[in-house]
Amino acid sequence: MKANRRNFVKTLGTASIATVLPKLSFSNSPGLVSPGSGKLKLTFWPYDLQLKHTFTVAEFSRDTTPVMLCKLEYEGFTGYGEASMPPYLGESQKSVAGFLNNVDMGQFNDPFRMDEILEYVETVDHKNRAAKACVDIALHDLVGKMLNQPLYKLWGLSPKNTPNTSFTIGIDEPELVREKTIEAIEAPEKLKVLKVKLGRGNDKEMINTVRSITDLPLYVDVNQGWNDKDKALEMINWLKEQGIIFVEQPLPKEQIDDMAWLTEKSPLPTIADEAFQRLSDVARFKGVYSGINIKLMKSTGLREAHKMITVARALDMNVMIGCMTETSCAVSAAAQLSPLADWADLDGNLLISNDVYEGVKVVDGKVTLNDLPGIGILKLN
Amino acid sequence: MKANRRNFVKTLGTASIATVLPKLSFSNSPGLVSPGSGKLKLTFWPYDLQLKHTFTVAEFSRDTTPVMLCKLEYEGFTGYGEASMPPYLGESQKSVAGFLNNVDMGQFNDPFRMDEILEYVETVDHKNRAAKACVDIALHDLVGKMLNQPLYKLWGLSPKNTPNTSFTIGIDEPELVREKTIEAIEAPEKLKVLKVKLGRGNDKEMINTVRSITDLPLYVDVNQGWNDKDKALEMINWLKEQGIIFVEQPLPKEQIDDMAWLTEKSPLPTIADEAFQRLSDVARFKGVYSGINIKLMKSTGLREAHKMITVARALDMNVMIGCMTETSCAVSAAAQLSPLADWADLDGNLLISNDVYEGVKVVDGKVTLNDLPGIGILKLN
Repeated sequence: MKANRRNFVKTLGTASIATVLPKLSFSNSPGLVSPGSGKLKLTFWPYDLQLKHTFTVAEFSRDTTPVMLCKLEYEGFTGYGEASMPPYLGESQKSVAGFLNNVDMGQFNDPFRMDEILEYVETVDHKNRAAKACVDIALHDLVGKMLNQPLYKLWGLSPKNTPNTSFTIGIDEPELVREKTIEAIEAPEKLKVLKVKLGRGNDKEMINTVRSITDLPLYVDVNQGWNDKDKALEMINWLKEQGIIFVEQPLPKEQIDDMAWLTEKSPLPTIADEAFQRLSDVARFKGVYSGINIKLMKSTGLREAHKMITVARALDMNVMIGCMTETSCAVSAAAQLSPLADWADLDGNLLISNDVYEGVKVVDGKVTLNDLPGIGILKLN
Repeated sequence: MKANRRNFVKTLGTASIATVLPKLSFSNSPGLVSPGSGKLKLTFWPYDLQLKHTFTVAEFSRDTTPVMLCKLEYEGFTGYGEASMPPYLGESQKSVAGFLNNVDMGQFNDPFRMDEILEYVETVDHKNRAAKACVDIALHDLVGKMLNQPLYKLWGLSPKNTPNTSFTIGIDEPELVREKTIEAIEAPEKLKVLKVKLGRGNDKEMINTVRSITDLPLYVDVNQGWNDKDKALEMINWLKEQGIIFVEQPLPKEQIDDMAWLTEKSPLPTIADEAFQRLSDVARFKGVYSGINIKLMKSTGLREAHKMITVARALDMNVMIGCMTETSCAVSAAAQLSPLADWADLDGNLLISNDVYEGVKVVDGKVTLNDLPGIGILKLN
């Protein structure tokens, strides 16, 4: 079949299209639908994020987070991606580099074929979720840039529907918690909700300390720090009275029956985090947790995260979108999905002092998307 | 940060982007992300499809199908949509016109905000699924045209992954069934699979007649025509030996417990059609049927159909994409999703003699997508 190529000229904001209709051409064979002659090219480099404050959760403390940054190039367009490797995920700059070195993106000449490309990436190794997210984010950024549209727009979402984001208060001595809470509520982002880490035995002290400073709604994240379901229920009943919105990962991820019991009795929604990684996990947590905390570094990126949201909604489960400590790259990528979420915890870039991108902002406490194409970031410097 | 707005010029196939970085602008308020000053404008008109052959299923026969065609205009772009109203769906040209007259699309100035627009359309009336599909299809076609890309490409799908489509053989006397089967296997589309309607008491005669002509794999659609689960299982065991691939809607939709029993025992996948309409139905049919037959006129269009596929896959259910008797408009729209389906029954446009669009084709039996933007159709005349 013979066909003429369309000539398409588009200027941002106003669009015009030549009305000469093309002859139908068909595309069962790869490469027929307007991919250029180019190949995808992946480059990556390690980076260490400096945390503004030592970060303490139920199991450990740290001052830095290793990440891997990447770019995916195609015919003059560049998409950016990121893998974040907090120690508890079992990935490192070495393991991610090892994975990415084995990814042959040069075999693909059409970045729009995301299903094909990401199915291939999935087969490179069964592990390395963060490394897969790095590629997925860069691919989405690239395609969004080629279409000159932000991803949220390509997904049909309204930017006004973004939720507020929480800012995390780690576990510490009361005086430091007080300081961090004051800093948080006085931050230029005008936060409307905080997330308090619990699970190290000083839960009531933590909440009371934060409550001595602010009446803002609070999320609570236990990071598997409780293990007795009756005590957990007792604590949740108390938290309910303190203006808490939900409780994240109250019990160890293995205690599934206890968790189903707790969710049934709990006056607050319960959210799965550590218990839950991939799309195939969502349906079996129906009735075990009220909802799920989706993070790109667990889901292997945006494509699977988007599907997770669809499935969770169909099962009447709550959706939270979270992040690791990350630059504005991965946080801005996650933010593109946030109009679909009940709650957001997208403070990863606010916790670091050496960001290398500018992207999504928190304005009056709300995740605020911009009109840049792709994941919506600019490279700094 | 200081920056100028991008000047972006793109030519299909080769792309260049000015590297001057834009100033970040934020878009919580509606209308900030490059919608033009235009409003969406919906126009619709009735049309009667002429069937090439009288169409007979378990319950009735007919020679025409009423449809409603529509267009959605925005700043020089036009998207096309269609509602098909076979009698058993309870919609008519009158009911669809009544619904569409109540849809105020002029309130929207950004067609990309599909969630917002289609959530509004959903609220206009709780019924009228075909009318909602009409708007949804036109909106998807419009947005695809504005981006100058086929929908399958915007969804990250590879056109080479489309399935074969079946062609339907209705219930009739052996001589006519023989004639129709010969016509089907000699058709220029070189069909690789046929779908045989059963459920009127002459099941074995129907299959034997088709089998006297061809060894092609067959789908079977009972249209709720059986009602005894033991006899149904006996028949399915026989059908398995005749090279049948799956059995669609064997029992009346109300017989849910019987259906779960049958699915567990059946050597062939069972597919829900009449039993199943919307996204919220999918999860409760896990374990009742092996899979679902998604049709745009049931799902209210492409957006919800796409979500249904995601949910069905996450629940390890089979996915079939089907259609009503429709022009190439609605069939081509459904075909955009077909790379995600196990099986397709997209013969609606092949059954009519007065199509008004050209779009998806069946080539060597396979659903074959073109590179036209949106749903991939051209208006004839």
